[in-house]
Amino acid sequence: MQNIVERLLNGDRRALARMVTLIENDTPLARKWLAELHQHAGHAHIVGVTGAPGAGKSTLVTRLVRELRNRGRKVGVVAVDPTSPFSGGALLGDRIRMMELAGDPNVFIRSMASRGSLGGLASSTRDVVRAMDAAGYDPIIIETVGTGQAEVEVMRTAQTVLVVVAPGMGDDVQAIKAGIMEIADIFVVSKMDKPGANQTVAELAMLLSLDPNRRKASWRIPILKTSAIKEQGIPELADAIQRHREYLIESGMLEQRAQRQVRSELQTLIVQAVQNALRSAVDEEEWNRLVEDITKRERDPYSVARELEARIGLK
Amino acid sequence: MQNIVERLLNGDRRALARMVTLIENDTPLARKWLAELHQHAGHAHIVGVTGAPGAGKSTLVTRLVRELRNRGRKVGVVAVDPTSPFSGGALLGDRIRMMELAGDPNVFIRSMASRGSLGGLASSTRDVVRAMDAAGYDPIIIETVGTGQAEVEVMRTAQTVLVVVAPGMGDDVQAIKAGIMEIADIFVVSKMDKPGANQTVAELAMLLSLDPNRRKASWRIPILKTSAIKEQGIPELADAIQRHREYLIESGMLEQRAQRQVRSELQTLIVQAVQNALRSAVDEEEWNRLVEDITKRERDPYSVARELEARIGLK
Repeated sequence: MQNIVERLLNGDRRALARMVTLIENDTPLARKWLAELHQHAGHAHIVGVTGAPGAGKSTLVTRLVRELRNRGRKVGVVAVDPTSPFSGGALLGDRIRMMELAGDPNVFIRSMASRGSLGGLASSTRDVVRAMDAAGYDPIIIETVGTGQAEVEVMRTAQTVLVVVAPGMGDDVQAIKAGIMEIADIFVVSKMDKPGANQTVAELAMLLSLDPNRRKASWRIPILKTSAIKEQGIPELADAIQRHREYLIESGMLEQRAQRQVRSELQTLIVQAVQNALRSAVDEEEWNRLVEDITKRERDPYSVARELEARIGLK
Repeated sequence: MQNIVERLLNGDRRALARMVTLIENDTPLARKWLAELHQHAGHAHIVGVTGAPGAGKSTLVTRLVRELRNRGRKVGVVAVDPTSPFSGGALLGDRIRMMELAGDPNVFIRSMASRGSLGGLASSTRDVVRAMDAAGYDPIIIETVGTGQAEVEVMRTAQTVLVVVAPGMGDDVQAIKAGIMEIADIFVVSKMDKPGANQTVAELAMLLSLDPNRRKASWRIPILKTSAIKEQGIPELADAIQRHREYLIESGMLEQRAQRQVRSELQTLIVQAVQNALRSAVDEEEWNRLVEDITKRERDPYSVARELEARIGLK
């Protein structure tokens, strides 16, 4: 059994697929093996692709993967859907477009969906990326379905984030203001053959010029136009992704981001351990009784919390 | 010193103000006293008011407070700004509009800003509401500046959530789809004297009709028009808020929401205790060393997390 790690490191796709399933099911075995895989990871460029539904992300990713294959890269894709409890379910239509890549032994595609908590999805995405990274995939593309808070969480694993906007989706440019803006490294205006593409580019440029933090930053966010149908702009996009990678390395940002991510991962792992400890220490019946005592004002939340902290051993 | 609790319960505004400051500074004393105050709270109707900047929330709240005062209520207002590290700083303009209420001994207004983590702001808002509640303020209005994730977190403390939309802010109606929609109990179209108010009402009605969860729910979300300038629609709004309160009680939802909130509060308190324990157990220098060991692949995050869990006593 142990040799799943060795097999994965030797490029066995079935071992990687098995590992991903173990991660999704959050088995203790998965953690044990991930701990071993960690030392072999850290080489891949992790690229996030996000944007509103309908922006054309899946088609773009398909074209981008093909371009990267032409450049001799071995590419991993993690398609994440925080809104669906079923892997691949809601996304079937989109995923079918990616099917053309499925026969290629140097492309590994996996869909992930939200089985449990949202935080859990970000964690398992990070672990799946770690496994693909150890297996030698580089770059690894993380694609999300939408632009909500869950997607932003998932995107924190990426080193380079592409935000995809389709022309004429004016609402999108507005929605970008919310949370996606801060994490964007490259803007992609997809469907450049459609009317309004230049206007969308202008709106994005305006948005960027208004952001004081952006003006100070040393990376100037490029706004690229692509057409998946006419296969235009894809090599330029691959080049921009590569340039951002080089910028991250030279500026020391790659190191900084990695350290920030490790900090956040440690926190997440510890909080998950606390939640597990609480689940073991307090059964559902007792939880209900404690909650009722508090809502009936017979006890207060602060002393109950202290009691539970003592119960799980917290100093 | 102990008698801050007694003084607060007797309606001493200075004791309440002191308590709020202690909560904001997150002192251990604050928790001790909040534990005592808990049994005296639970009477207030907690009303959240959210919406994009410029939607007219502060003016609306000012009018609403006046209406509630005419109805003989003693009103608390907590104005929360997750984007500002300074209480009241960024909001000064808005807050000035509320100044007209400042002389009234039966109105207590407090601004809160994000000093530390966002989670911390939601916690301290909940604690400030608890203190105001114990001091006899009812209703207590929580107003936020925007509609981001942090605002949604803060709004979870509210029992009745008003989402305010100004006419002609079409983007707003789009933005509402994101996260605010799920927590709205009443829509308010402010500035009804402006052109486009009826269209905004129609757009909101459409949005609601498209949501399958809403159609099944027993509370039909009202869409109310108000004009703060012409002082129209405010009594109707106060009535709707009251009706929602009655609905919550009769349907058992008030109890359910209270229980859900207590669960989440217990979790938050325990996670905060874990973070404090980690801060005591691991100094900044060691954190940096651990993080570096992991990013250099000399150690893995899973075993480091387990070591830290053992260090803070976690079973």
